[in-house]
Amino acid sequence: MAEYKGLFHIDESAKWGLLLTNVENTLKSGEEMELAVVANAEAVRDFAQEGTIRERMSKLAAQGVSFSACRNALQGNNVDITSLPDFVQIVPAGIVELIKLQTAGFCYIKP
Amino acid sequence: MAEYKGLFHIDESAKWGLLLTNVENTLKSGEEMELAVVANAEAVRDFAQEGTIRERMSKLAAQGVSFSACRNALQGNNVDITSLPDFVQIVPAGIVELIKLQTAGFCYIKP
Amino acid sequence: MAEYKGLFHIDESAKWGLLLTNVENTLKSGEEMELAVVANAEAVRDFAQEGTIRERMSKLAAQGVSFSACRNALQGNNVDITSLPDFVQIVPAGIVELIKLQTAGFCYIKP
Repeated sequence: MAEYKGLFHIDESAKWGLLLTNVENTLKSGEEMELAVVANAEAVRDFAQEGTIRERMSKLAAQGVSFSACRNALQGNNVDITSLPDFVQIVPAGIVELIKLQTAGFCYIKP
Repeated sequence: MAEYKGLFHIDESAKWGLLLTNVENTLKSGEEMELAVVANAEAVRDFAQEGTIRERMSKLAAQGVSFSACRNALQGNNVDITSLPDFVQIVPAGIVELIKLQTAGFCYIKP
Repeated sequence: MAEYKGLFHIDESAKWGLLLTNVENTLKSGEEMELAVVANAEAVRDFAQEGTIRERMSKLAAQGVSFSACRNALQGNNVDITSLPDFVQIVPAGIVELIKLQTAGFCYIKP
């Protein structure tokens, strides 16, 4: 079990670049970390779009970072679920996931 | 006692719509949740304004969600305290309330 | 040991005024509080600039508030480390610091 657990919350598309830089730097720190990213609101749209952001997500997922998308937000933003990459886990409600993970010891960060 | 406790922080008026949608979706999730909203800075002004936002707050308050306003912010934004609806609790300092609730097990969320 | 511990996160320069007001009001509350401020991303630049913001930081530091700057962010924003005031502590990675302090009982606040 990792000594430290970090939970990143994103609800604005414009924050993806900063968030991914934060996650990348955290992984480079050498500390043993378990990291999760939970997206809700408009930020879930970026999971469905090819490009640099998704390539960076994909590399982080391969290093063990988890990525979750809020189903309410996917529906509200008309995101085609079949367009999501395999590394994205769909959760029923993003906020509930954020509360459950914090209750399980994850430390919240909002870039 | 609810299994999960969520604490929503708001300090920008523009975020009320998103925050209330988050709270509404969380309540619909079917999980047993105790939810609190703490507003400071300019966000306390919206408690004093009639309209859709306040109607949504009122419905959530009737479902058990607590709403707190920072007294420092009410004074700094010249909000007439007599214009606040009954469901709003005034706390001496919003940040202190956020720290006390987290210390009591509430999980922080900043939409 | 303080009864309550508050941890303020800032990554946008525009939020310094609000954050410092939050910290000042928290100190005035009369509660026994241990307070830490961790800055990353562009927000570290303000540590290197003379002016009202830095004077307010300096007064808070004299009252026991800690201020930390992310080394990754200092480098990424080309901040000359010799221009930082003595009260600023440099940490290897801001996000790691935020996770460690939360693990040590600090309550996260993002103004």
